Amino acid sequence: MAYIPKKLIEQKLIQFLKEDIDYGDITNELVPNIPVIANLIAKQDGIVCGVKFVKILLEVLGIHVNCLLKDGESIKTGDIVLELRGKSKPILTSERTILNLVMHLSGIATQTRMFVKKIEQSGLDIIIAATRKTTPGLRYFEKYAVIIGGGDPHRWSLSDTILIKENHLKLLGDKAIETILKKAKKKASFSKKVDIEVENLVELKIALKFSPEIIMLDDFSIHDIKKAMKIVQDISKHDKPLIEVSGGISKHTIDDYIIPGVNIISLGSLTHSVTPLDFSLKIKERS
Amino acid sequence: MAYIPKKLIEQKLIQFLKEDIDYGDITNELVPNIPVIANLIAKQDGIVCGVKFVKILLEVLGIHVNCLLKDGESIKTGDIVLELRGKSKPILTSERTILNLVMHLSGIATQTRMFVKKIEQSGLDIIIAATRKTTPGLRYFEKYAVIIGGGDPHRWSLSDTILIKENHLKLLGDKAIETILKKAKKKASFSKKVDIEVENLVELKIALKFSPEIIMLDDFSIHDIKKAMKIVQDISKHDKPLIEVSGGISKHTIDDYIIPGVNIISLGSLTHSVTPLDFSLKIKERS
Amino acid sequence: MAYIPKKLIEQKLIQFLKEDIDYGDITNELVPNIPVIANLIAKQDGIVCGVKFVKILLEVLGIHVNCLLKDGESIKTGDIVLELRGKSKPILTSERTILNLVMHLSGIATQTRMFVKKIEQSGLDIIIAATRKTTPGLRYFEKYAVIIGGGDPHRWSLSDTILIKENHLKLLGDKAIETILKKAKKKASFSKKVDIEVENLVELKIALKFSPEIIMLDDFSIHDIKKAMKIVQDISKHDKPLIEVSGGISKHTIDDYIIPGVNIISLGSLTHSVTPLDFSLKIKERS
Amino acid sequence: MAYIPKKLIEQKLIQFLKEDIDYGDITNELVPNIPVIANLIAKQDGIVCGVKFVKILLEVLGIHVNCLLKDGESIKTGDIVLELRGKSKPILTSERTILNLVMHLSGIATQTRMFVKKIEQSGLDIIIAATRKTTPGLRYFEKYAVIIGGGDPHRWSLSDTILIKENHLKLLGDKAIETILKKAKKKASFSKKVDIEVENLVELKIALKFSPEIIMLDDFSIHDIKKAMKIVQDISKHDKPLIEVSGGISKHTIDDYIIPGVNIISLGSLTHSVTPLDFSLKIKERS
Amino acid sequence: MAYIPKKLIEQKLIQFLKEDIDYGDITNELVPNIPVIANLIAKQDGIVCGVKFVKILLEVLGIHVNCLLKDGESIKTGDIVLELRGKSKPILTSERTILNLVMHLSGIATQTRMFVKKIEQSGLDIIIAATRKTTPGLRYFEKYAVIIGGGDPHRWSLSDTILIKENHLKLLGDKAIETILKKAKKKASFSKKVDIEVENLVELKIALKFSPEIIMLDDFSIHDIKKAMKIVQDISKHDKPLIEVSGGISKHTIDDYIIPGVNIISLGSLTHSVTPLDFSLKIKERS
Amino acid sequence: MAYIPKKLIEQKLIQFLKEDIDYGDITNELVPNIPVIANLIAKQDGIVCGVKFVKILLEVLGIHVNCLLKDGESIKTGDIVLELRGKSKPILTSERTILNLVMHLSGIATQTRMFVKKIEQSGLDIIIAATRKTTPGLRYFEKYAVIIGGGDPHRWSLSDTILIKENHLKLLGDKAIETILKKAKKKASFSKKVDIEVENLVELKIALKFSPEIIMLDDFSIHDIKKAMKIVQDISKHDKPLIEVSGGISKHTIDDYIIPGVNIISLGSLTHSVTPLDFSLKIKERS
Repeated sequence: MAYIPKKLIEQKLIQFLKEDIDYGDITNELVPNIPVIANLIAKQDGIVCGVKFVKILLEVLGIHVNCLLKDGESIKTGDIVLELRGKSKPILTSERTILNLVMHLSGIATQTRMFVKKIEQSGLDIIIAATRKTTPGLRYFEKYAVIIGGGDPHRWSLSDTILIKENHLKLLGDKAIETILKKAKKKASFSKKVDIEVENLVELKIALKFSPEIIMLDDFSIHDIKKAMKIVQDISKHDKPLIEVSGGISKHTIDDYIIPGVNIISLGSLTHSVTPLDFSLKIKERS
Repeated sequence: MAYIPKKLIEQKLIQFLKEDIDYGDITNELVPNIPVIANLIAKQDGIVCGVKFVKILLEVLGIHVNCLLKDGESIKTGDIVLELRGKSKPILTSERTILNLVMHLSGIATQTRMFVKKIEQSGLDIIIAATRKTTPGLRYFEKYAVIIGGGDPHRWSLSDTILIKENHLKLLGDKAIETILKKAKKKASFSKKVDIEVENLVELKIALKFSPEIIMLDDFSIHDIKKAMKIVQDISKHDKPLIEVSGGISKHTIDDYIIPGVNIISLGSLTHSVTPLDFSLKIKERS
Repeated sequence: MAYIPKKLIEQKLIQFLKEDIDYGDITNELVPNIPVIANLIAKQDGIVCGVKFVKILLEVLGIHVNCLLKDGESIKTGDIVLELRGKSKPILTSERTILNLVMHLSGIATQTRMFVKKIEQSGLDIIIAATRKTTPGLRYFEKYAVIIGGGDPHRWSLSDTILIKENHLKLLGDKAIETILKKAKKKASFSKKVDIEVENLVELKIALKFSPEIIMLDDFSIHDIKKAMKIVQDISKHDKPLIEVSGGISKHTIDDYIIPGVNIISLGSLTHSVTPLDFSLKIKERS
Repeated sequence: MAYIPKKLIEQKLIQFLKEDIDYGDITNELVPNIPVIANLIAKQDGIVCGVKFVKILLEVLGIHVNCLLKDGESIKTGDIVLELRGKSKPILTSERTILNLVMHLSGIATQTRMFVKKIEQSGLDIIIAATRKTTPGLRYFEKYAVIIGGGDPHRWSLSDTILIKENHLKLLGDKAIETILKKAKKKASFSKKVDIEVENLVELKIALKFSPEIIMLDDFSIHDIKKAMKIVQDISKHDKPLIEVSGGISKHTIDDYIIPGVNIISLGSLTHSVTPLDFSLKIKERS
Repeated sequence: MAYIPKKLIEQKLIQFLKEDIDYGDITNELVPNIPVIANLIAKQDGIVCGVKFVKILLEVLGIHVNCLLKDGESIKTGDIVLELRGKSKPILTSERTILNLVMHLSGIATQTRMFVKKIEQSGLDIIIAATRKTTPGLRYFEKYAVIIGGGDPHRWSLSDTILIKENHLKLLGDKAIETILKKAKKKASFSKKVDIEVENLVELKIALKFSPEIIMLDDFSIHDIKKAMKIVQDISKHDKPLIEVSGGISKHTIDDYIIPGVNIISLGSLTHSVTPLDFSLKIKERS
Repeated sequence: MAYIPKKLIEQKLIQFLKEDIDYGDITNELVPNIPVIANLIAKQDGIVCGVKFVKILLEVLGIHVNCLLKDGESIKTGDIVLELRGKSKPILTSERTILNLVMHLSGIATQTRMFVKKIEQSGLDIIIAATRKTTPGLRYFEKYAVIIGGGDPHRWSLSDTILIKENHLKLLGDKAIETILKKAKKKASFSKKVDIEVENLVELKIALKFSPEIIMLDDFSIHDIKKAMKIVQDISKHDKPLIEVSGGISKHTIDDYIIPGVNIISLGSLTHSVTPLDFSLKIKERS
């Protein structure tokens, strides 16, 4: 995943904590601030994700964190993922923030891994990719979890790759695809790839003439995707664009989309429909 | 819901947008910046939530927003929720941020309303409440969606109500419940309610002696909840605390928890397991 | 007091320092940056408050702080409160910020303690509470000082307790008290207490019917407060609300307000009319 | 006073408001959001200060503000200072923040004016100046109030004028005054004045030799100040430094310090010992 | 150039202004705040850049801005670029900030255009590109000026394109180029291009085998660049990577680098060695 | 230079780094994170400046920095200025930010020293001063570099010294100089110096009557400067103001401006026309 120094993530994590602390933890004033050991324990099987961030945040609070399992590892119910040593007050005060983060990110990583496994079983070389359908404010964290699960982050932001969609084409009238792909050649930075969403086989053929780096088949039927694969093969010998399929693909239907020639399957649900993976934080004993 | 002046939410919404814009929308430089009309359209039935925020954000960008449906109203597939009039570039650039927010919040409101409806059908006066199991950074927005759906936000943060949980009690050794409830009487601000989580009927009886405002029955079986209701009735005549039940309650099991005497059912899943409600933004025409 | 991890206060304290440093300490460039010992010394008797924050700030600057006296302890003129060891430049540069904070907060704590003592001498169990009449930007710090002095912080913010005042009632026309207290029952979160300000005995009687958790007698004469105490006793046997008195109470008049039945005396002057407690910072020697 | 565009103060004022609003005004959800007229009314005689900031903040919230009296004008109990027209909710939600700011700043301006009047009555040309003994976070606002009251802000920050104090001299050993004043000549920017604090007449005589722009007589007795005035006259014919007196001067003792030859009297109490001037905000009617 | 809504740039521009205003403009208090007309006038020939930002900032300050010339247009000494109408104080206070920004950015645009012109004259299709050698804090603005001048922004940040340089290779030991290009194929996101810097013809040949999208010839002699062009032609028929040349190219030497086959010439000096274009702001008359 | 605690600069430096890191360093994920030694090496002769900031930033990232040469020292091509020891990833990720800062600031310091040397050779006591013509956002850093080079920072901001310029005078009509200098005497803080820009000898004579602390001869010919020096000598015996000359002075013409009686030569080009001093960062070996 893209490297970011700890210090730069720290501020965002502290903001997450602040949201919960507000004017202070008023329950905490009723308990002693004594040294304790506490464990972060898995309550479901899956892929753990987010402990890297938990460690950064807790160390800022003066808590020693021992990572028994790292982001990306498989966990089973009952596994101790982290062992914390520190004062009871900061542990209690950060408990919910930590759990919210780890449960959400592990949910994403677990779901992503499930899709990646299906591809691996097929023997084909298809990338499972996220989209920009992320929870506001959590783009970096959710894409990180996708990568940890084995997926591709796709565009981090609107600055990242040129991605031409239906609403763009609507602004350009007739011959919109030609117009915009020509303009992209001329005006877009050489350092960026161009990805264009097409709605049908006719649009696909037009797009192929301008050799964009990526073509996304949006909401194509399985039948049409197969036709599209043939068209692509025929037209672009040396310069075949990457083919991305997207739109309404779920764990129930993905198997149908694992089609030779498809390079990328992108799934909004990786990040927008997250079932958290359950964890608990237990204070074990006074240390 | 708790009133916040628009200006104070604006900054957070702009931050959401910035996360996507980064160094600028590089696809947008390939299309003209012309006046258009665009619609936000429901693609599923449910409760709409978040259009209040979308309106604030888009107006900051100079886009006129006509709200055809407001937060909390029922929507059907195909309903036009918002009509936007403005320049094409800011609309295209904010499209994804807007959709991510509305889809997430409408998902929460829709799910909450479903639970609230079940209570209404029972004829009992039970509150459906959220928890602090929210997505990091979105506490205010997600609790807002719960309220819009008809639920109670419960604690906004650790400053909000004294809520004594298992990990607190572990720090206090023998007679932990007595100790902490006495201390709360003495040291906590008169302006705050006290809520205590009990794990079994014995703990419940102890807690009742100190008349906290709220007692939460944590992970109680249906059988034990019913027993608990009797105990509460017997012991606390004039000063009955509010009874909150919590722990592993889902849409499949909630009916069993609708028990006379229960005042609140709190559900982490309202905010942590969100299935978004689908919407799309369509540029309709040049205005 | 409400627990907040050090790291979360650090940023606010650094902001206080920045306000003074601006483009740098231009006098400091004329002196050597040598190791010194310096003392924070009381120049008046009272209650010390704020050394917890000074320690956090100075440690950020690399200065070792030895707390000889802690927040809440009584101090006498000449007492050494803190012993600092570190480089001369950061000590000189932060001197004024530190003194401004400690003098202001100790002034509040000292004044609060004086009121609390008066209550203790009366033998009654009355709470001395602050209000939201705090200096802009210093809410957390000033309420902290009130708690250190033995007082109750009352509401930290408008999110904290429902407090219905004259201006609210004016918006509701006839039967405003009935209307709003009924609405509060129905719409306010179960997790919040309701406090209502009444202007006279008639309003008090109306309010009592709806059993709010707290009733504030606003600017009542001593005579009326005593009458009010009788009314409360008569009407609300089992469910007596907390009675708060407020309005123009000073150190000269407080004794009159220490009346059986009163639960809380709230005082804006605790935080808005602060006479600082004097301290000085003396560089003692090269260490 | 130093000119700052409105937009740049807006952010600080919004922060003040945020401190009170937190997760939203929960009382406000019980009242209608209707158009009202409200008045800010003086409850004491004095000098009004801060309405400039109130106007900026309220306009951000969509409230129309009519200033009947401006910062610096004399007010009498009962005077209407501002007339507000707008929706009831933003007015109620900002009420406390506005009052806290205006009461604090008017307290400072009123006190400053009182000192300035005393000087005016003496017929001498002496400046009443503030110090850096301000409330943390409020430096700009409190110095503004001093200026409004007729005083001089003195240093805004440590970057503002070279001010050499006792703790600086302690770092320099023998001949500290000579050493540091020579160094200042050589190393300090030509754009800055040099102010040096002296503790006695001997130090004064040394300082005079190096012609700093300002000499502060720190905690001098009236008797010594008069002697100092003679020394200054004798030694520095053409190049007389400004003479500042400071240390423990109050409204009870100031008359003694109004001595010919003194140029500046600086008073920490102008900003650190503030008795607020009382105001109230009354919703008058539905507009 | 990459589209960013005005509101999102506003904050950065206000920060630039704040840096200069600090505690307020103390000279401004000596002049009246009257309506004036002022002109921004070119004092040198070149390409204007930055007026888009000036307009945003000044409108925030309530000043009406009439753009007579837009970013990217050629200007001659004496040309009026902007006509401002507004109060004198905000104009005077923002004068320096505005001039500093426009002069710096116009300097960049002018220099870039000069290089672009040289390419145009050659008839070849070579891109003039910036680098990440920008002034800290000004990346967005300086790259914007490069685009306005007709150049390509190249990478906005380290997240933007994979760019493998000498220091990366040093970490990988033998066969570093092979290793890293294979790894990039496998691990880097499909949405990113890969650019690799090679130091000599041997490295070039190795790199070519792995078909990265871009190869940068770092500090190659003219002679070697020509040899490289031949090698590229021979090896990569269908899949020719873009060839970027970089290193020590100046306006004096650029002509030699305009070699057929070269796709991009990247120049650190576009942004790190900026000679500002001179402008002045003249208050013309009272409006 | 003006002292600022490290912690307060840290945040600005981290912001510089963040601008480059954005969503993470995507090239860095292709190399191992191993311990290395790296050197910052001079590639040109000059004065080094900025290593103080580099050290602060790198230590935040966990890298040990050994400063072989300090800000202000002369360096020769090939000199190792810093030796870094730490993990490879943070070093690679911060490389460009560090180099951009050091190269820019060393460029300023080197140029400033060159001017200062010219003065030293003349034997006169003239100050080389910067102006407010700095790069937006870099005021503090660029003025720091000027000081390191031996120059005077002049005004840090508009709050710093009263500096009356042509545009101010235009607002005041007839007798503008008299009017504003009288007003300054009366209204400006005693703690500030007054600097006035004059355009010709007539204005100079008027200004001299009001004894401002500094008079700036703006764009005067050499001939007129010499005349001015005589006028100053004649008129102001005891109270001679500092004389600053400014306007279009370059390294080619400065010698002519080194005239007895001139106190300050201020140069916008010190900070606005910066040729960076070249450095490179080389990873030397695995440590």
